[in-house]
Amino acid sequence: MYKNLIKNVVIVGGTHGNEFTGVYLAKYWLKNPNMVQRRGFNTNIIFANQKAFKEVRRYIDRDLNRSCSLSILSKNADSHEAKLAHHLNTLIGPKDNHQENADFVVDLHTTTSNMGISLVISNQNELTWLAASYLSEEFPDLKIYRWQGDEEGAFVDSLGADGFAIEVGAIPQGVLRSDIYKQTEEIVYKLLDFLENPSDTNRTVNVYDHVTLVDFPRDNDGEIIAMIHPQRQDNDFKLIQSGDPMFLSFEGQIIVYEGSESLYGLFINEAAYYEKGFAMCLARKIEYSF
Amino acid sequence: MYKNLIKNVVIVGGTHGNEFTGVYLAKYWLKNPNMVQRRGFNTNIIFANQKAFKEVRRYIDRDLNRSCSLSILSKNADSHEAKLAHHLNTLIGPKDNHQENADFVVDLHTTTSNMGISLVISNQNELTWLAASYLSEEFPDLKIYRWQGDEEGAFVDSLGADGFAIEVGAIPQGVLRSDIYKQTEEIVYKLLDFLENPSDTNRTVNVYDHVTLVDFPRDNDGEIIAMIHPQRQDNDFKLIQSGDPMFLSFEGQIIVYEGSESLYGLFINEAAYYEKGFAMCLARKIEYSF
Repeated sequence: MYKNLIKNVVIVGGTHGNEFTGVYLAKYWLKNPNMVQRRGFNTNIIFANQKAFKEVRRYIDRDLNRSCSLSILSKNADSHEAKLAHHLNTLIGPKDNHQENADFVVDLHTTTSNMGISLVISNQNELTWLAASYLSEEFPDLKIYRWQGDEEGAFVDSLGADGFAIEVGAIPQGVLRSDIYKQTEEIVYKLLDFLENPSDTNRTVNVYDHVTLVDFPRDNDGEIIAMIHPQRQDNDFKLIQSGDPMFLSFEGQIIVYEGSESLYGLFINEAAYYEKGFAMCLARKIEYSF
Repeated sequence: MYKNLIKNVVIVGGTHGNEFTGVYLAKYWLKNPNMVQRRGFNTNIIFANQKAFKEVRRYIDRDLNRSCSLSILSKNADSHEAKLAHHLNTLIGPKDNHQENADFVVDLHTTTSNMGISLVISNQNELTWLAASYLSEEFPDLKIYRWQGDEEGAFVDSLGADGFAIEVGAIPQGVLRSDIYKQTEEIVYKLLDFLENPSDTNRTVNVYDHVTLVDFPRDNDGEIIAMIHPQRQDNDFKLIQSGDPMFLSFEGQIIVYEGSESLYGLFINEAAYYEKGFAMCLARKIEYSF
C-alpha cells in the first residue's frame, strides 16, 4: 500500500503562452484557491509564462517546456525562459535533489492534435504512475503517452518529485473552448482527490510508449513538400501499418508508412512541432507494470 | 451580359503569416505558375508577409489586412506591415484610382472558426458579385459574408478593382490540413475558370450581411470571464434567437442572447479576434441582388 507523504502540490498553467486552457484555469484558481485546496497538502498555482501569454506566443526566446534541464539550470540564465526555469526551480525544485519543494507537479497543456485527454509521463516514480492509473480508471478515454522523445529531462514537470503533463486537444492555439476547459478542470479535480487519498490502483496500465519522431517530407532547402494525409489527420492513437498513407504531397502523391512494425500515431499535426521538425510521433502500445 | 475586360488577376497568400494554407498555396503556385494561368489575362501570385510566416505570427507590427486604407497609404510607412501595404499598392493598386494594376484580387485566409468555405466581400462591384454567385453555384456549401465590420476599406483585396477574401475553417493557426488546402485550391481554380469566361450568373444570392460584433464578457480589468457556450462553438452560420446561450462563465453561468432580432453567428471563436475584442460576428441573412 502506498504511504502518503505529500505536502505540496503544484499546478502549472501557461507554460506555453498560447495554450489558453491552462492559462485561464491558472487565473481562475489564483482567484478561487478554495477550488484546488484539499486536506493534508498545500496546492500552489503557477501561471508560468505571462509574457508569452500577453504576446499569444508559445514562448519568447525558447520553449520553457524544454528549458528545465540541469544543464540550463546550472548556468546563468541567458533568455526569458531560462530565467523562468530558474525561478520555477526555486518554487518547485531544486531539481533532482530528492528534497524538492513540490511533491507532485501537474503541467497543463493543449495541442492542435486530436489527442483527446492524455497524460505525458517521463518518470518512473510510483506516485506518478498510481495517479495515472487512477485517472485512466476515472476517465476511460484517457490515454497515457510515455514520452522519451526530445529532452524529456527538460520538462517543467521534471522539476518536482512526481508529476506529469496533461495534454488535451484538438484545440487551436490562442483559443478557449469550454469543452476542453471543463475536461481539463475535471481531470485536475480528480487528480487532487486522488492525491488527498491515494489508493492502491491497478499497477498495470495501457501505455503508448515512445518509439520515434517522423518529420514532414522536405526538399533540399528544408521546405515542407507534403501534408499530413487525410487518413492520418485527427486519427491520433490509431494503428499505422506498413503501406498506410502518411503524407499527401502538394502534387497529390501519397507517401506511405514503410516501417516493419505497426505503431500508433500521436501528436499528429501539432502546430508547435513544425519548427521542431516533426509531423507526428510513433508509439508502441504496451502493458506497463510498475 | 457582362463584358470581360480582365487583364490582371492577383492571388495573395500569407497576408497573415500563421495562416499556412494560403502561404503554401502561394509557394506552390510560384513554383508551378502554369496551374493558375488562363487565357486572356495574367495571374500573379503574391506571398505577402514572409517575415510574419517565418515567425509563425499573424503580423509583425500591425495586421496587414487592416493596413491597406487610404490613410495609411497616403503617409510614410512606419511599420513592417505599412511598408508591405505600400508595396502591395504598387503591385495591385494604386487604390481607388479606377486604373488599378489588378482587375481582380483574391486573398486567401483561414480561420479557427468553423466557417467552412466562405467569401468575405466588402465591395459592390459587378464582377465581384458575379464571381461570388458563380462560386456559390459551384460549391453549394459556400457562404457569402458581406463584411462591414471594422476597417473594411483596409483589406488587401480592397487595393484592386474587384475581388474578395476566401476564408476556410476550422483550422488552427500554424497548421496545414490537406482537406482545407484542397478546398481552397479548388475554389481558386473555379474562380479562374470563371474569370476566363465570365457568365451571367444568378444576380440574386444569399448573403450574410454584417450587423454587429459581440465581445467576450469581461471584468472591470478587461479580463475575459466567460467562454463561447458549447451550443455556439462550431455553429457558425446558425441562427441565434433571443434566450439562446452565448457564453459560459468559468463558474458555469450561462449568458444568453438578448437581442430582439434573430441573427446568425459568424467567426465564432476566431483566435485572432481575441485581441481585437470580439468573440463572434452577428449577421442578417438576406437575398442580395446586384
